[in-house]
Amino acid sequence: MQTTQMTHYEHPLTEKVRIYLRLDYLLRQMHHSSNQNDPWQYKIFFHALFDLLEILDQVQVKTDLAKDIEKQRQQLMNWLNIDGVDEYALQQMIDSMEQAHKALISSPRLGQNLREDRFLASIKQRFSIPGGSCCFDLPSLHHWLHLSDEHKQQAMKDWLHELSELDEALNLWLRLTRESAQYKTNHARNGFFQYDAEDACLLRLEICAKDGVYPMISGHRSRFAIRFSPFVEGDPVASDIEFKLAIC
Amino acid sequence: MQTTQMTHYEHPLTEKVRIYLRLDYLLRQMHHSSNQNDPWQYKIFFHALFDLLEILDQVQVKTDLAKDIEKQRQQLMNWLNIDGVDEYALQQMIDSMEQAHKALISSPRLGQNLREDRFLASIKQRFSIPGGSCCFDLPSLHHWLHLSDEHKQQAMKDWLHELSELDEALNLWLRLTRESAQYKTNHARNGFFQYDAEDACLLRLEICAKDGVYPMISGHRSRFAIRFSPFVEGDPVASDIEFKLAIC
Repeated sequence: MQTTQMTHYEHPLTEKVRIYLRLDYLLRQMHHSSNQNDPWQYKIFFHALFDLLEILDQVQVKTDLAKDIEKQRQQLMNWLNIDGVDEYALQQMIDSMEQAHKALISSPRLGQNLREDRFLASIKQRFSIPGGSCCFDLPSLHHWLHLSDEHKQQAMKDWLHELSELDEALNLWLRLTRESAQYKTNHARNGFFQYDAEDACLLRLEICAKDGVYPMISGHRSRFAIRFSPFVEGDPVASDIEFKLAIC
Repeated sequence: MQTTQMTHYEHPLTEKVRIYLRLDYLLRQMHHSSNQNDPWQYKIFFHALFDLLEILDQVQVKTDLAKDIEKQRQQLMNWLNIDGVDEYALQQMIDSMEQAHKALISSPRLGQNLREDRFLASIKQRFSIPGGSCCFDLPSLHHWLHLSDEHKQQAMKDWLHELSELDEALNLWLRLTRESAQYKTNHARNGFFQYDAEDACLLRLEICAKDGVYPMISGHRSRFAIRFSPFVEGDPVASDIEFKLAIC
């Protein structure tokens, strides 16, 4: 029997969470590509790195994230004396959050060493030109690409390490936020679903891939709407689409 | 015994060849990534595809390339009656070029079907936003990414096929241009090399990777200079760098 393939979507209901998800998405690409040997993989890494630095230039993530981590930690502290709670695991999580918070607020400006890295700075600008990372555009990059895989992977890991405080704090916050709500089955009538939420910040959806639809979500913390569109233009949308939703 | 690892560089001496090399570079990325199963590989494909379309929007490649292919074919025709030439192989090449030329000039505007593709158009814009291809930015892309590898690879091959006239003509022209000159050993004194060429359009270099230098090339069809810079800032550059150079 074939298992039903589910597609997972996440949607931020606040601008801050939108930024967190973007950063998380870019960091995941960097982690993944830093472990590959594929000759073009570096393009994923550098594109993601430069995108991430651009976001960090535009938005002050550090203070927001530190506050959010601390808020989460306070909430967890309230659970410490509740019966039936695994105090050991909880305390470990609280400690991790305290460490992540400390590391984040005591870190220098996020990504500063990456901005000042001579090699990265020399290739960053060209990367935004269409096809601008040819060997004649960036001979230094071309030289770097011919270093050993070990050398390149180590360099990528070192660059990633410069983002470790952000990475760690973001991971913790997202993990706890994602785990804060369970998936519940819902139904969209004629491809539409609307809901009044209470101070939500993140929606998670699980949709059956064979329904052939993808969700277009609009809304904010207290009210959102999901419209399911057919992937193939003109295809009918089922009058009743079952999907799972977690309101975090 | 370890073989010496050589790094190859190419440098265009005209604006037209610069564009050809960029397009070739992007097409190679697309071909490569369309055969991979790596989950982030699509980023390479789409970045390359959208870069390529942007170049085709800015520059009229078709007429130039058609003329260049025809010029190359005429040159090959002159060799047909020379003693010692493999006429059969030569005639085959001439026929290929004639076909490529015909296909190119009779093709519609290069990449036009890709510009009009509803799915590609829907994701193109977001791709230039930093981190802008998250699942909440592009749920239709996210849906597409969860289709089977076969389905995705077929789609990529179909999109590439839309560029086959360009691809074929570019390949032939670059191949013959690259083969038009042999590598010769040269020496750069104190990291510098200068040369007066005769109507060259493309330089090809072969540099020993362990020299730790990369070439910065400036010049035009009739005169060019190569300066070798140390990859590691502050490292000394050998007073005599041996390298191979083909002036095509």
